[in-house]
Order: sequence, then structure tokens, then C-alpha cells
Amino acid sequence: MRADARDNRARIMTAADEVFGRSPGASTDDVAKLAGVGIATVFRHFPTKTDLLEAVLTQRLEKLRDRAIELADSDDAGEAFFGFFTQVVSESASKLAIAEALTAAGSAAGADARNAGSGLRESFDALLSRAQRTGAVRSDAGFPEVYALLIGASRGATATGLEPEVRDRMLGLIYDGLRPKA
Amino acid sequence: MRADARDNRARIMTAADEVFGRSPGASTDDVAKLAGVGIATVFRHFPTKTDLLEAVLTQRLEKLRDRAIELADSDDAGEAFFGFFTQVVSESASKLAIAEALTAAGSAAGADARNAGSGLRESFDALLSRAQRTGAVRSDAGFPEVYALLIGASRGATATGLEPEVRDRMLGLIYDGLRPKA
Repeated sequence: MRADARDNRARIMTAADEVFGRSPGASTDDVAKLAGVGIATVFRHFPTKTDLLEAVLTQRLEKLRDRAIELADSDDAGEAFFGFFTQVVSESASKLAIAEALTAAGSAAGADARNAGSGLRESFDALLSRAQRTGAVRSDAGFPEVYALLIGASRGATATGLEPEVRDRMLGLIYDGLRPKA
Repeated sequence: MRADARDNRARIMTAADEVFGRSPGASTDDVAKLAGVGIATVFRHFPTKTDLLEAVLTQRLEKLRDRAIELADSDDAGEAFFGFFTQVVSESASKLAIAEALTAAGSAAGADARNAGSGLRESFDALLSRAQRTGAVRSDAGFPEVYALLIGASRGATATGLEPEVRDRMLGLIYDGLRPKA
């Protein structure tokens, strides 16, 4: 890909992330406008709206996975785990909007997004194990139920359009349940 | 309403609760078959699919509200609160399926369902306050974040199709966070 084509593609992805993350019903035209390119350029890079949504969702999931991998080396395993949990829940509204737009476009998440999702799951599991080894998270909490809590907190925050303060207090209750009993 | 008409209406409601609670895409015809009545009888009681869905969702919410009101008199306020929380989360998959069918039918929940929803919220608040007064739930947990936890746990359990054992362990973590610190 030539440099200007790469540049266009990146601008389209950034615009699409913002547009679809805000409103799942937005059009490819809205994306082209925000990216400052013609609609034909969008379709050259992404032949269908589904291709574009899939690329944006995959990028979101990959960024979160990369953040989790990066945090796996941090000094404070507890802070890494709880900080990452908070980040996932905070970003969930726009991520779910993108997934919803994909469903509305008549498609389930494809192989790329599914792979990125698995990678995110694995790296979250690694953060959990490390936080349990250092005693920041209780050792009797299994991955499936902690992961269910992460999904639940994300969906709960999104479904009810929670104020950030309420969301943080909800997370505080969850984190107290995850810490070892005194 | 005559006794046989009342009887038919009740059978249609019971069938609709089961049919739509299992699969949001089911048809009014499926409901008529399970209820053992003709489709014309269904439409005489519920002129549109939306009317039927609304009635079923309202009935679900009212039953939960009535259960919460009943529990408000029980001897063990902590058991009442946590038991009710568990019941709401356990029943959420079919309740959300009905709400989803209503959205798919092009309608938001109407006044009846919204009123029943408010009643449920209020009676849950009463169970929480009572559990806090008896020391079963920490007193610094506010209603908005506890309610967000209830919605989140319900949606998390539904979205990921959790096994009952994982769901119960997830609830165990949430309940530990809600109990007063030792």
C-alpha cells in the first residue's frame, strides 16, 4: 500500500471508530465526511460497511489486548489488574455500539474480531493470575466468574447509561468482593 | 370479562411468557398453538403482537415486584435481599428475551411495563435499606450502584449464556463485595 493510501485508511478507521462508537445507526457517509475523504475512497478500502465495522471492532479489541500485555510487566500486579478492569468497563459503551452496528448490518463478528477477542481474554486471564499470586486478588476466584463480572459490569454500565461516579462506585463494590477477605 | 374469556386470556399469557421468553423471534401463531386456542382468539385479547408482549413483560415485572414486597416482611433481611437479587439474575435471560422481542416489534416498553419497572426498583430499594439497617449489607453502598450491579449481573449472565454454577460463583463475589467489611 502506498503511503497516502495507508494514511487514508488510518484516517477512515479513526473516523469510523468515533462515528460508530457514538451511534450504531451512523452511515458510511458520516465516516467519509469526518475522515475528509470521498465515499469512493472509503469503499476502495472497505468494500462493505461490515468490512469497516469489523476492522474497527478488531482494532479496539487488539488495543485492549496490547494494553493488557503491556500491563503484565508492571510492578504492581493488583493495580494492573484493577486498572485494566476499569479501562475495559469505561470503554465498553462505544465498543458495544460498534458490535451492535455490526449485528444491525446483518453480520456476526468475523474471524479477525474473534481472534482479537480471544487474545484479550487470555491476556486478562494472565493479569488475573498474576494479581492472585501477589495476593491482590483472592485466590479462590476462578477465571470464568471474574470474566463474567467484567462482561456484566461493562453491560450494566452501558445498558443503564451510568454516570461515571456511579460506575466507579459500582466498580468499588466489585473490587471489594475480589480482594482477599481480611 | 366472562369466565371462559378470562381463562383463555390467562392461558395465552402463560404460553406467551414461555414462547417469547425462550426465543424473541417466535410468532403469535406459536403462542396460539401452545395455548391451545385459535389465532383469532389471541387477536381478540391482544390486537397486536406488541400488546401481547407488553402484557407479558408487565406481568413478569409485577410478579418480581410482588415477590420483593412479600420479602420485605421476612425475618432475615439479608437473606431476603440476596435471595431476591439471585432470583432477578436467574430469571433475567427470559425477561430480557421478552424485552428484546418488544424492541424487535418496533416498540419500547409502554406505560404499564414502565410502571411495573418503577415498582420493582422501589421495592428492591426497600429490601436494600432493610438489609443495610440489619447490617447484612454495608451501609456505604448507595442504591444507584447496587441497582447497577443488579442490572450488570443480569445482563452479564444473559450475554455470555453462563452456566448456573459460574453464575452462582459470580454472584458470590458480588455478595462478598456488598457485605460489611470484617
